[in-house]
Order: sequence, then structure tokens, then C-alpha cells
Amino acid sequence: MGFRLRPVDTSFYDLFTRSAEHLVAGAEILAEMLADSADRNAVAERMRQAEHAADETTHEIVKKVNSTFVTPFDREDIYALGSGLDDVMDMMDEAVDLILLYEVKALPPELSAQVTVLQRCAELTAQAMPRLQSMKDMDDYWIEINRLENEGDRNHRRTLAKLFSGEFKTIEVLKLKDIVESLEGAIDAFEKVANIVEQIAVKEG
Amino acid sequence: MGFRLRPVDTSFYDLFTRSAEHLVAGAEILAEMLADSADRNAVAERMRQAEHAADETTHEIVKKVNSTFVTPFDREDIYALGSGLDDVMDMMDEAVDLILLYEVKALPPELSAQVTVLQRCAELTAQAMPRLQSMKDMDDYWIEINRLENEGDRNHRRTLAKLFSGEFKTIEVLKLKDIVESLEGAIDAFEKVANIVEQIAVKEG
Amino acid sequence: MGFRLRPVDTSFYDLFTRSAEHLVAGAEILAEMLADSADRNAVAERMRQAEHAADETTHEIVKKVNSTFVTPFDREDIYALGSGLDDVMDMMDEAVDLILLYEVKALPPELSAQVTVLQRCAELTAQAMPRLQSMKDMDDYWIEINRLENEGDRNHRRTLAKLFSGEFKTIEVLKLKDIVESLEGAIDAFEKVANIVEQIAVKEG
Repeated sequence: MGFRLRPVDTSFYDLFTRSAEHLVAGAEILAEMLADSADRNAVAERMRQAEHAADETTHEIVKKVNSTFVTPFDREDIYALGSGLDDVMDMMDEAVDLILLYEVKALPPELSAQVTVLQRCAELTAQAMPRLQSMKDMDDYWIEINRLENEGDRNHRRTLAKLFSGEFKTIEVLKLKDIVESLEGAIDAFEKVANIVEQIAVKEG
Repeated sequence: MGFRLRPVDTSFYDLFTRSAEHLVAGAEILAEMLADSADRNAVAERMRQAEHAADETTHEIVKKVNSTFVTPFDREDIYALGSGLDDVMDMMDEAVDLILLYEVKALPPELSAQVTVLQRCAELTAQAMPRLQSMKDMDDYWIEINRLENEGDRNHRRTLAKLFSGEFKTIEVLKLKDIVESLEGAIDAFEKVANIVEQIAVKEG
Repeated sequence: MGFRLRPVDTSFYDLFTRSAEHLVAGAEILAEMLADSADRNAVAERMRQAEHAADETTHEIVKKVNSTFVTPFDREDIYALGSGLDDVMDMMDEAVDLILLYEVKALPPELSAQVTVLQRCAELTAQAMPRLQSMKDMDDYWIEINRLENEGDRNHRRTLAKLFSGEFKTIEVLKLKDIVESLEGAIDAFEKVANIVEQIAVKEG
């Protein structure tokens, strides 16, 4: 298209960027939670704060959508992107919460590989959000998120196979499976965010 | 706004109220199911009937939306509210069904606390539905549902911690976890209903 | 209605039909996976290929929706139907994948009953898709899918009761429950497809 006729309110991009930056912070706290030496209560408390901060940004996005006459893209897409980012945080928060709650003694090293994938997804998403305005170089973002999701999927399957290998007591399998599934859920939620961004690009492009 | 220009079909409010009243009935049946002395087969059969009755009301809402030219609020919001109320019933029905199916011997007392929360949510929702027409005093409803959801969340986490405390056999943990998760799902579904109502209020307000 | 004013692009019906035919293929591969004599690695590999082929058809549907000016029915309904069909495949793929991954030794015969239901659902759906154009005899399709979903639900409950009867080791229950739930998820996904078709028929009828 030649030029935009709609006056664009840039602060939506700022809010999405802030929302994704909460995810960078959340992924880092999640990584700390896995450390053998972690003070789990203290780390979980920080995760709770990060999750509240993310919630507030989501509410700001919703409030802004409801009070803005001309939005940079479709209202429903703004809702979808806002709540998609929020879903990632919820899944990471759940993982941290379950590690605390279930009092899991030994976390298998496979979990760290998944959290590394999550940290990379968070960084890429935070870098992509400001580019929503120009829609430039978005392909790199989708392709890399999809590659990471595939990597996460292979990690996930390997971890499940290990959990059921006979090495762990059944009650520990039950606990670890929940944790492992929240990590996979968080990676899937990142992929969903990338899909929403792709759909917005197709519509607006 | 000064006055409404759209002629309003009041029976949508009646249908939502009836739908929420099914939830009051369902929550009570669920409470009976937890009693040590319960004839579980008979109680589950009554739950099935309550669930069918709720389904019929949901279908009436959908049929009415499809055949009404001027609806009191957006069609998609009516669908969302109707199916949101229906989701609560499905989760409560699932909880009753699992208690019957898994033949759980001893239900930990923590479950009763959750069902009390559910009963309170159902009553509040049934009282709020007729107020959709005037949108008066809806804040009290949202605030109280949110408070109850937080209480339910704390109960849920306490119950999970107990399940994994070593007191229960693993197979019982597996059964109880499913039941406990349906109860939490029902409370979350009530919160989702409150969020839909809040969004309607924002749009129409 | 008398006659259509919109020129209709028939290839949407072809794409939905092809999408449903992938499900027929997928359900058959799933049936092979249950056989005692199955080379599970080889069968799972064929499932992966079937799932990729289904994905490609889904992408074609999305691409076509985005590039077509006049669609045979609402864009959002085309998306919903396309992704509804895709969801079935994902659930069947998950079931096959878990059987491979968990290295389940003995699969209880109840699983075969569920896969027979799935095969029947797939055939009915594939036969119904070309009829989307005329919307003739769609009732038979919905009614039969609903009947099959009820049958599947009874199978599912019977299977869960058996899993928890004390006959299986807890770790096997944990594995089988996941597999059994993916089968039920696939049947539910078929019902959701039928509901989407029903809604389209109501709107367009």
C-alpha cells in the first residue's frame, strides 16, 4: 500500500512490547527456579509479582482498545494478541507454582533445555513487537519461533520418554508430567502469539 | 446514555437467568454427591437430568439469537455468555461423573470447601443475570466472583499440596487430582462468565 | 432462498473434502497402530506424514480465504471449519505418538472400540463435505455424528472404569489414561466439526 490514511496510535506497540518484556523477565525467573540452590519460596514470590505486572499491562491494552476510536489494527486482533501474550505468562507462572507446590526433589536436566527454548522465544517476541508498526522483518521472527517450537517438541517427547522409562517413582512421574506439560504449554503459547502476528500481517500487509 | 432506541426483547434476560438457576441446582447436587451417605448412582442420575435441562436452555438461547432481528446486545456476546454458563454445568457434571466412575472411597474434606465456593458463585450469578437489563450493581457481582475465584485458587493449591503429601496412594492421587481439577475448572468457568458480563457492560454502558 | 447471487468458488468444497479424507487415512493408520503385530515405528512415521499432508491442506484453505474476494460462506466459518478438521488430525496423531512414546505393552481392547467410532466419524465427515455446496441431507450427518459421540462417550467411561479397576499398575494407568483421552478428544473434535457445519447451515439456509 502507498501510505496509511489512519492516524496511528503508537502506544499500542509500546504496550505489546512491554507485555513481551514481562515474558523475558518471567522466563528468567523460571530459569532461576530450576537451579538446585534456588530459594524456591522467594523465586516463586517474584514470579507472582511478574505475573501481576503482566496482568496490569494486559488490562491496559484492553482498556485502551475499548477507549480508542481508531486502532492500528482490528480490535479483535489486538485482544487476541494481548491475551495470547498473557497466556504465555500464565503457563510459565503455573510451572513455577507447581515446582513449589509439589515439592519436587530432583528436577531432571531435560527441563532446563525447555526453559532455554522459552527464554529464546521470549527474547525474539520482545524484539518483534516494536516491528509490528512497520511489519518489517517479521518473517525471521515467525520462522525462528516455529523452529524453536519444533525443538521444544522434540525435547518434550524425549522428556516424557525419560519420565516413563522406569527411572522415576510413579508419584514423581505424576508431578513432573504436570510441570513438563506447563513448559510445553508455554512454548505452544509463544507459537500461537507468532501465528496471531502472522495473521495481522496478512490482513494489514 | 439517555434512553434506548432499540426495542428490547426481555426474554433473553429470562433465559440467562434460567440458565444460571440450573447452575444453582447443579452446585447443590454436587454438594450432595460429596456426602458420605450419598447414594451416588441416584445423585449422579439427577445431575445428568440437570445437565440436560441446562443444555436445553442453552439451545433455546442459540435458537433465539438466530431468529431474533434486534438483540439486546451483540450476538457474539449472547453466544459467549450462553456457552460460558453451559461450560460451568459441564465441569460440575464432570466432577460428579468422575466421583461415580472412579469409585473414590474417601473424599478429602478440602473438596467441600471448593463446592461451597461453587454454590456461592452460582447464587451470585443467578442474582446478577436479571440485572443485565439495567446493568445496575454489576460491580458487586464481578468483585465478589473474583474474590471467590481467589479463595478457590488457594483451596485448590492447598488440596493439591495435600494430595502429594504422601498421605494417599498414587492411584488415589491420580483419581482425586482429576476431580479436584474439574472443581477448579468450574470455578474458573464462573469467573469467565463474569468477565463476559463485564465486557458486555463496557460495550453497552 | 431462490437462487444465489454470489458466484461460488467450488474449490473450497474440494479443499474441505480433501481435509476430511486425510482424517479417513489418519483413522485407518490409528487402527493399524493398535494391532499387536504393528511395527509401531513405521506406523507412527506414516501418521506423521498423514498429519503433514493434512497441515498443508489446512494452509491451502487459509491462503485461499485470504486471497478470495467472494467466499461461499463467512470467512470466520471457513477458518473455524478448516481448523476444526485440523484439530481432529492433531488428536489422532497425538494418540499414535503416545502409544509409541510410552512404550505401552498391552493396549486394552476397549481402545479398538473407540477407534472404530473414529473411523466411522471420519467416513461420515468425508461424505458430508461435498454436500456443503447444496446443504442437502446434512441432518443425517449431524444426527449420526451425535449418536457416535454418545457411543464414544459410553466407551470412554467404561474404559476409564476399567483402568481404575485395580487390574493395571498405576504407571500403566497414567500412560493409558493419556492415550484414552486423546481418542476421546478426537471424537469430540469430530462433533465440534459437525456443530460448525450446523451453524453454517443455519446462517446460509
